[in-house]
Amino acid sequence: MDKKYVYSFNEGTKDMRALLGGKGAGLAEMTRIGLPVPFGFTVTTEACSRYYEDGKKIDDSIIAEIKEKLADLEKVMGKKFGDPDDPLLVSVRSGAPISMPGMMDTILNLGLNDDTVVALGKLTNNERFAYDSYRRFIQMFGDVVLEIPMKKFEDIFDGKKAEVGAKFDVDLQTEDLKAIIESYKKLVKEEIGRDFPTDPEAQMMEAITAVFRSWNNDRAILYRKINDIPNDLGTAVNVQSMVFGNKGNTSGTGVAFTRDPATGEKRIYGEFLVNAQGEDVVAGIRTPEPISQMAERFPSAYKSFEHICEVLEQHYTDMQDMEFTVEEGKLYMLQTRAAKRTAEAAVKVACDMVDEKLIDRKTAVLRIEPEHVEHLLHPVFDAKDEAKAEVIAEGLPASPGAAVGKICLSVAKAVELKESGEKVILVRPETSPEDLAGMISAEGLLTARGGRTSHAAVVARGMGKCCVAGAREIQIDEANGVMKVGDKVYNEGEYISLNGTNGKVYLGEITLIPPDFSGNFGRIMTWADEIRRLKVRVNADTPADVKQAIEFGAEGVGLCRTEHMFFQDIRIPAFREMILAKNEKGRRAALAKLLPYQRSDFKAMYTALKDRPMTVRLLDPPLHEFLPKTDEDVRQLAQESGVSEEAIKERSDALREFNPMLGDRGCRLAIEYPEIAQMQTEAIISAAIEVQNEMGYEIVPEIMIPLVGGRRELAYVKDIVDKAAEETMAKMGKKIEYQVGTMIEVPRAALTADGIAHHAEFFSFGTNDLTQMTYGFSRDDTADIIAKYVDEGIMDTDPFKTIDYYGVGRLMKYAAEYGRKTRPNLKLGICGEHGGDPKSIELCNKIGLNYVSCSPYRVPVARLAAAQAVIKQADEEEEI
Amino acid sequence: MDKKYVYSFNEGTKDMRALLGGKGAGLAEMTRIGLPVPFGFTVTTEACSRYYEDGKKIDDSIIAEIKEKLADLEKVMGKKFGDPDDPLLVSVRSGAPISMPGMMDTILNLGLNDDTVVALGKLTNNERFAYDSYRRFIQMFGDVVLEIPMKKFEDIFDGKKAEVGAKFDVDLQTEDLKAIIESYKKLVKEEIGRDFPTDPEAQMMEAITAVFRSWNNDRAILYRKINDIPNDLGTAVNVQSMVFGNKGNTSGTGVAFTRDPATGEKRIYGEFLVNAQGEDVVAGIRTPEPISQMAERFPSAYKSFEHICEVLEQHYTDMQDMEFTVEEGKLYMLQTRAAKRTAEAAVKVACDMVDEKLIDRKTAVLRIEPEHVEHLLHPVFDAKDEAKAEVIAEGLPASPGAAVGKICLSVAKAVELKESGEKVILVRPETSPEDLAGMISAEGLLTARGGRTSHAAVVARGMGKCCVAGAREIQIDEANGVMKVGDKVYNEGEYISLNGTNGKVYLGEITLIPPDFSGNFGRIMTWADEIRRLKVRVNADTPADVKQAIEFGAEGVGLCRTEHMFFQDIRIPAFREMILAKNEKGRRAALAKLLPYQRSDFKAMYTALKDRPMTVRLLDPPLHEFLPKTDEDVRQLAQESGVSEEAIKERSDALREFNPMLGDRGCRLAIEYPEIAQMQTEAIISAAIEVQNEMGYEIVPEIMIPLVGGRRELAYVKDIVDKAAEETMAKMGKKIEYQVGTMIEVPRAALTADGIAHHAEFFSFGTNDLTQMTYGFSRDDTADIIAKYVDEGIMDTDPFKTIDYYGVGRLMKYAAEYGRKTRPNLKLGICGEHGGDPKSIELCNKIGLNYVSCSPYRVPVARLAAAQAVIKQADEEEEI
Repeated sequence: MDKKYVYSFNEGTKDMRALLGGKGAGLAEMTRIGLPVPFGFTVTTEACSRYYEDGKKIDDSIIAEIKEKLADLEKVMGKKFGDPDDPLLVSVRSGAPISMPGMMDTILNLGLNDDTVVALGKLTNNERFAYDSYRRFIQMFGDVVLEIPMKKFEDIFDGKKAEVGAKFDVDLQTEDLKAIIESYKKLVKEEIGRDFPTDPEAQMMEAITAVFRSWNNDRAILYRKINDIPNDLGTAVNVQSMVFGNKGNTSGTGVAFTRDPATGEKRIYGEFLVNAQGEDVVAGIRTPEPISQMAERFPSAYKSFEHICEVLEQHYTDMQDMEFTVEEGKLYMLQTRAAKRTAEAAVKVACDMVDEKLIDRKTAVLRIEPEHVEHLLHPVFDAKDEAKAEVIAEGLPASPGAAVGKICLSVAKAVELKESGEKVILVRPETSPEDLAGMISAEGLLTARGGRTSHAAVVARGMGKCCVAGAREIQIDEANGVMKVGDKVYNEGEYISLNGTNGKVYLGEITLIPPDFSGNFGRIMTWADEIRRLKVRVNADTPADVKQAIEFGAEGVGLCRTEHMFFQDIRIPAFREMILAKNEKGRRAALAKLLPYQRSDFKAMYTALKDRPMTVRLLDPPLHEFLPKTDEDVRQLAQESGVSEEAIKERSDALREFNPMLGDRGCRLAIEYPEIAQMQTEAIISAAIEVQNEMGYEIVPEIMIPLVGGRRELAYVKDIVDKAAEETMAKMGKKIEYQVGTMIEVPRAALTADGIAHHAEFFSFGTNDLTQMTYGFSRDDTADIIAKYVDEGIMDTDPFKTIDYYGVGRLMKYAAEYGRKTRPNLKLGICGEHGGDPKSIELCNKIGLNYVSCSPYRVPVARLAAAQAVIKQADEEEEI
Repeated sequence: MDKKYVYSFNEGTKDMRALLGGKGAGLAEMTRIGLPVPFGFTVTTEACSRYYEDGKKIDDSIIAEIKEKLADLEKVMGKKFGDPDDPLLVSVRSGAPISMPGMMDTILNLGLNDDTVVALGKLTNNERFAYDSYRRFIQMFGDVVLEIPMKKFEDIFDGKKAEVGAKFDVDLQTEDLKAIIESYKKLVKEEIGRDFPTDPEAQMMEAITAVFRSWNNDRAILYRKINDIPNDLGTAVNVQSMVFGNKGNTSGTGVAFTRDPATGEKRIYGEFLVNAQGEDVVAGIRTPEPISQMAERFPSAYKSFEHICEVLEQHYTDMQDMEFTVEEGKLYMLQTRAAKRTAEAAVKVACDMVDEKLIDRKTAVLRIEPEHVEHLLHPVFDAKDEAKAEVIAEGLPASPGAAVGKICLSVAKAVELKESGEKVILVRPETSPEDLAGMISAEGLLTARGGRTSHAAVVARGMGKCCVAGAREIQIDEANGVMKVGDKVYNEGEYISLNGTNGKVYLGEITLIPPDFSGNFGRIMTWADEIRRLKVRVNADTPADVKQAIEFGAEGVGLCRTEHMFFQDIRIPAFREMILAKNEKGRRAALAKLLPYQRSDFKAMYTALKDRPMTVRLLDPPLHEFLPKTDEDVRQLAQESGVSEEAIKERSDALREFNPMLGDRGCRLAIEYPEIAQMQTEAIISAAIEVQNEMGYEIVPEIMIPLVGGRRELAYVKDIVDKAAEETMAKMGKKIEYQVGTMIEVPRAALTADGIAHHAEFFSFGTNDLTQMTYGFSRDDTADIIAKYVDEGIMDTDPFKTIDYYGVGRLMKYAAEYGRKTRPNLKLGICGEHGGDPKSIELCNKIGLNYVSCSPYRVPVARLAAAQAVIKQADEEEEI
């Protein structure tokens, strides 16, 4: 038998993940670089496979190997299994090559029995601790190894508590624990027909077998099936000696960071407890001391620790988060991993490490979570204040940042309070374009319905305002001016605070900390710009947004949604007149009123952009979105427009659709009412000519036709646009260049991209709709379904947040490839919400887009993510 | 100069379409096989291209060629251009290689001028005819060649009519026509600054130039752009000598078929008029005589004609439809083409021609329009009766056949009348599953809304009942028991007749002719079965449908929609109880009531099928479809169920969706409520076991999971199904084989077919939904848009009728290919409406599906279409 089935920790490396599992490989690596890790060994994944091949039996030769490694372990530790004076105790843990829920996790303190528990009490000088550990060990072993229902152990435990009148677990005395242990042993004997195993070796072999068995439990099998993990991969088992930080005043335990995780400052930061186990630090029963106390108490161990911090940072070239134990003056490292850190710390650590020549600029750029960048652009809550505040509801974190203001349940109220100098949070069941004025007045938005891509969320992100969406517990009673959560009632005018980054809603005012663009932030962004290939544009409909985005580094507008312009107060009556008109003549009359507004809108945008490009999308949403919904509003429109209420309702009914998402909108409107596209084209072209005449900017308008599904459809609308453009230029006596392109947002457009590219000078992927139609998911209806799918492991992530690589991604790749077959210089971009999502930007980089476009506050995120995409792609040149 | 730009008719063949255009190639072919065709020549498409290359100028060398061919023509005809005794007159027609609207069509009688018109009058012995022809020639030439607005000619013409008090054109006398001609000439001079061309050669050259020019008019350019026809293809021009059937009693004209187009009987069938032109036959001013009269009047010409009929059938090996003229005893063939014929005639002619050894069986199979087959299965109206009946409305021909019955506006009324022995037509705004009882009672269905794939249409086709859908003019006033069309009112109980094949609604009772499965029909179907590769299954939910379909040749059930079973009276209360239940326990209790019904439904289906396979789809539609819609119905449900009205409405509201098509349905229901899928699986498996035990049939149930979008989703639901199947088999003590597969109806499913195939033993393409999502077209909302697209040439055909080859077809091809990469023996089928559409079946054959499935009355259509697909594919092995 040549194959080796068991590896001591000093026989492996971090690259042996497939054989040793993730955890085993990590322990081996720490051992390898000379860190003081409690010794142990790993039974390999191949041993697990053999277990199944051999009919659920561990082969004698493997048992012999395990025993050999155990003997080595005893030798290294100077302790023996079952030794009544100084017994070896171990933990047994599973560790598959791929992290996988549902399998047996951990058994601690294995090796305890009626004899060794006495020794543990003496060694830790804590008899109660020893018996409680023993009690827990029997219970854990009984449950996961012997498969006795946990409920039966709990019944015994709770019975004892009731019997002695103990309110909490800690109220049980040592004698009580001893009695419980006796009952547990009796239970075990009744259940499995034999005594609880007292021989530590037998305990260990049973535990190893249980880990192998758990590889094939129902939950693990389903998980592998769903995630396409091969069944024959197998799991490894790690057996590691226990060390005790609670052996008296020469022992202790702690957690620490190599640098300050809040600020990034270069100093060891952490907490320490004398005579304690790791659990005690976590449980918070005793208050830990700052790590500096360790230097005083254990100067030698601390010096070792300082050195280890240096070694770890040099080895991993990153800031580390470590757990350690001091047992009788000797330091043991239990874990090290890359440290979580705040956005501020991440930026500082990355820049410092470049200066320290520990990492290069590329690595520094990779070290910043792109999502963190957005936090740096928004105010945040004072963390201590937030921790103390009362959470009254929770929703989806739909737009990041933090906001404080008074509850306002209507647009009118929000506008009124804002005008009187108050800060306002607009709280609505959901928002529609009619709520725009209220949204502008508010510091933040809170909705009871809708998801990440609801109207409220999209508009809020565009405005850089914080938004919590879909907080389902909230009930809004506008008539009585109250918001209810369960049986609690909050009045309009009361202060609340929203955290758009974690989705929490707090009562009262929490202190806000304004954003700070430090010098380090600027350095990172400059490095990112040097690396990235993708251009970054902004989705913006107002000059204010354009100006904000340019400050954030935007290189043009990727999506200007003209319909947002129509919702503004002075324009909506004319637009509704157009919809209600009986014939083309009536529509043209109404459109003539809109033309000057549209032209001046575009002029303002072009002026703000200077010579940067702008893609304008022709009218997209279904017309019924522009008509009033309530009887009250219909009545008002009837009065204003002179059209009867009946006629308005009739038109509304005629426009009503079963599935508006798949209905009369996008270029279908342009085909039905060419006069709309003509007016918009005239506005775009004439605005560009006027700004060019007035300011001298070279403007090449990009006119984008939405919801195209095929070549002929695009050709038809392009013909309308081209003619209107020619006429406008003739009228103005000046020729300019312009481009006509299309959204790729209907699956058929992607599938026939080779045909469509004959008539399109650019494609812009509208991945919101593309995702809706590719999945058959209405984003207004399926937030719950998607949440459930993510919970159940059916999806890794919400496809409206990150582009679905395998479905939507394949379509995009196909469209890019086939589009460029027809037109090699086809310009490709993305303007869906995904344009600001880092994982999605990686995909965009891979399939060769020219730019991404996103909301203003995502622009710096996209710049960084685009740089990271270049670096990562160079590493893994793999197919999608 | 080597290239030849002008071909006489005797210099070309039917294969020279690209050079001579379609029309020119046809005329050449007839000439080539020795038919007496009025002679002429074709100016080639290359001459058109040269015209543009040379700066819109016909090169002198080409002009010389034209004149040369003209001289040949004069020689052949023995007539000369401008000859005042017997002038040559010609027609000039455009003819592109691809039929294309928008171009100049035809100029007749070219060669007329003030001199030749006199000759024409004498030759035809009809002065008025001659001057009317001259008048028309100037008008047509003025409009299309000289580009003078038609309106100006019409004003002159109408002015003259008013002046002389003529009510109709024919009331104008020769002198009036002469006066009009003078005014026309004056108008031409004013408009173009020169006289109307009197020289026939000049007329001809101007006409040829006009045809070339029309190649580049706006409409033609847009058409080419939309249809991707190259601009440099060019059009040909045909110049053909005129012949006159109105030169006296030795002349005449006629149209005829080589066989009877109504019955297929082998005898010449047609009509004939002495001393007349073709126009006269068409205009119906004189009543034509049967063709037999020609034999008496012109025995020699008729003998030639009989011979020509033989020649044409032998040459084209098909029944011909011909136009001819006899000029002074001499027969001229003006046109021949494959004859349109009734379904009955098509079948008889094809079988006869096989017996005559004129064609082989494959050709015979190709000769039957698959759509015609369905007509043979349904009753039809007596054609004479139908021609006389009053059309009161028109809708979409949604399900073929004909039906007569009394108008019923409600289900209750329909059931009541049917029970009292009356025949009923159910007339509804639209139908829903609740109307099922009424639909069963009715002979035919008429709806005011909805399209080809509306509920009414789909159910009617399934039942083989006639349906006219979306007859928009109809208004239904159920309260007053009347149906209105415009200002006309029809009472409930009045008789109407529906033609589901042409969409017409008639007042009163039209005589019905029952279907007749003749021996010839059986022969054709047998030949088709020998050729086809695709299996044909049926979409059926009832044993009655299954039996009907098996008679029509169905080889199994491709789609059994379980939800249709839930709508039946006794089941719907339990199903609603399930929906309204507060928790899983309540749902399980309601499902337990449904289980015996589902089981007995499946048993009846399996029994009817004997050993043929059946695919059962798990519950698919959104739950809100099962809840009552009106307040009245909610009240009733509240009384029956004991659930409060409020609670019902609340649940309804909670289930309400913005885009139900993209919402909570299909496998998403199974993931939310696994107990539904469990109950259905138990019913399917236990029914199969029981029928197997009782009848001995070998049943392998096929369980189909709908709306799957990805591999993990399918794995999750398959796990639920597998466990329920295992439990059921264990409970019943018998193991059977079964298969689990999925619908491919979400674009993402097609795009990730390689992954999905890991867990699916079969795919069934749900092309209705796949088309909706691939195009972004809700079929409930976009009928008008699609109609407009087809009108405008943006689409060739409704993609819900025929699969869109380039978009949906690419997805299907991809799914088939990638699915079989993972699982080479993956079974592939289609169960969307397209499964019964011949063009779509061609695609299914090409991409290698195993079967198509369609409604019972489409089964024979599919059998024939599947055979034709095999034959056609062998011919054109081209890529999709």
